[in-house]
Amino acid sequence: MVGIGPGSLEDMSLRAHQTISQADTIVGYDTYIELIDELLPGKAVIGTGMMQEIDRCQAAVDEAIAGKNVAVISSGDPGIYGMAGLVWELAMKQPAATRPEVVVVPGISAVGASAAILGAPLMHDFAVISLSDLLTPWEVIKKRAEMAAAGDFVMAIYNPKSTKRVSQIEEVREIVLRYRDGKTPVGIVQHASRKKENKVISDLTNFTQEHIDMFSLVVIGNSQTYVQDGVMITPRGYRL
Amino acid sequence: MVGIGPGSLEDMSLRAHQTISQADTIVGYDTYIELIDELLPGKAVIGTGMMQEIDRCQAAVDEAIAGKNVAVISSGDPGIYGMAGLVWELAMKQPAATRPEVVVVPGISAVGASAAILGAPLMHDFAVISLSDLLTPWEVIKKRAEMAAAGDFVMAIYNPKSTKRVSQIEEVREIVLRYRDGKTPVGIVQHASRKKENKVISDLTNFTQEHIDMFSLVVIGNSQTYVQDGVMITPRGYRL
Repeated sequence: MVGIGPGSLEDMSLRAHQTISQADTIVGYDTYIELIDELLPGKAVIGTGMMQEIDRCQAAVDEAIAGKNVAVISSGDPGIYGMAGLVWELAMKQPAATRPEVVVVPGISAVGASAAILGAPLMHDFAVISLSDLLTPWEVIKKRAEMAAAGDFVMAIYNPKSTKRVSQIEEVREIVLRYRDGKTPVGIVQHASRKKENKVISDLTNFTQEHIDMFSLVVIGNSQTYVQDGVMITPRGYRL
Repeated sequence: MVGIGPGSLEDMSLRAHQTISQADTIVGYDTYIELIDELLPGKAVIGTGMMQEIDRCQAAVDEAIAGKNVAVISSGDPGIYGMAGLVWELAMKQPAATRPEVVVVPGISAVGASAAILGAPLMHDFAVISLSDLLTPWEVIKKRAEMAAAGDFVMAIYNPKSTKRVSQIEEVREIVLRYRDGKTPVGIVQHASRKKENKVISDLTNFTQEHIDMFSLVVIGNSQTYVQDGVMITPRGYRL
């Protein structure tokens, strides 16, 4: 399980680079495999579309059982909404005697990469929430948004919107507005560290009028977060 | 602002490596500077003790104003409880015309590195909380712990204990026990990705009896997290 970071090869760790270089077989989304195409010559590649996570991870486990050195690549960190859990779950279905060795090589996460682009919004306690309701009931997600808002956590929102799922981010906005001022800074980052990288700084009242899609990560500031000259900063509390 | 990752040079990104290599002056905790000593020949080094963050970051800003290319190094990710915020805050006190350019180079965070060592505990929504009350009132921290527990977030606890501050982690345990079963898995990682790396898997009832110190990161599972053969897994919700 290898995290390749947010996108650019420069953001990959040396260990991730070495692990991929030494692998016989590379498994991952086609999109992520394209990001590392210069490392692929001579390797078997198992790439599939977006909705076939289980098949893909099972193929990786099967290859490993067959004796191959397999690298399952995830963008960002495989341990944060990535494939690490699914591979571990599938590997655990094997008896211990034949179970392949599983190692997670962490990567720079999307939330870390996005924060760096916005300034320094994660200097204080934060909550990471995915709005995807494919595998999680919306009521659970909504409760989490409410608790994070009530606790004055900085909130990092993965999967804020997709083509079919557009109303949830508006609901979250309304929940957070019950606890925070409408002027609370909100940052939106698309394609962090890739060619199409884009950032917008808005506020809680207005941010859902900005372009938000499945490639966006939304960071809602806490009660102390401010914006100066386009940079989003959550102070740690030092007296300066 | 350069994140050097959890400790091993192998976990540093190529961009972090290049940024440090190109710098004239390196600023950081002595402990972190030691981790990158092979990159230091020929550079000026400003290293100081633990409690002088403001002076150290101000020195970095002053050097940059004087025309030096300065790398302020943080372990993990400088954007997560690191020095990115303080450097930005100090840089913003300069008039825009003379303000040095500030760039955050993200790194693999302590929470990501620790999760990789424990298995895959961060596959679902999680909250990151520091128990250090040097800059944050304990009542605020306690409220956050309660909200994170109520929202069934996986909880990643930075600074769980220090020599002088020992009771807070026990208070957090009691808060979470109001919402979660005593058998909820808890992982403790020390010195992730360094020579003295150590992990313990325990549960909510018992984990505070384990050795926990200022180098520990504690991960409390959500209601779905389980342990199998020593590996901590939070399922994402796939039907397998």
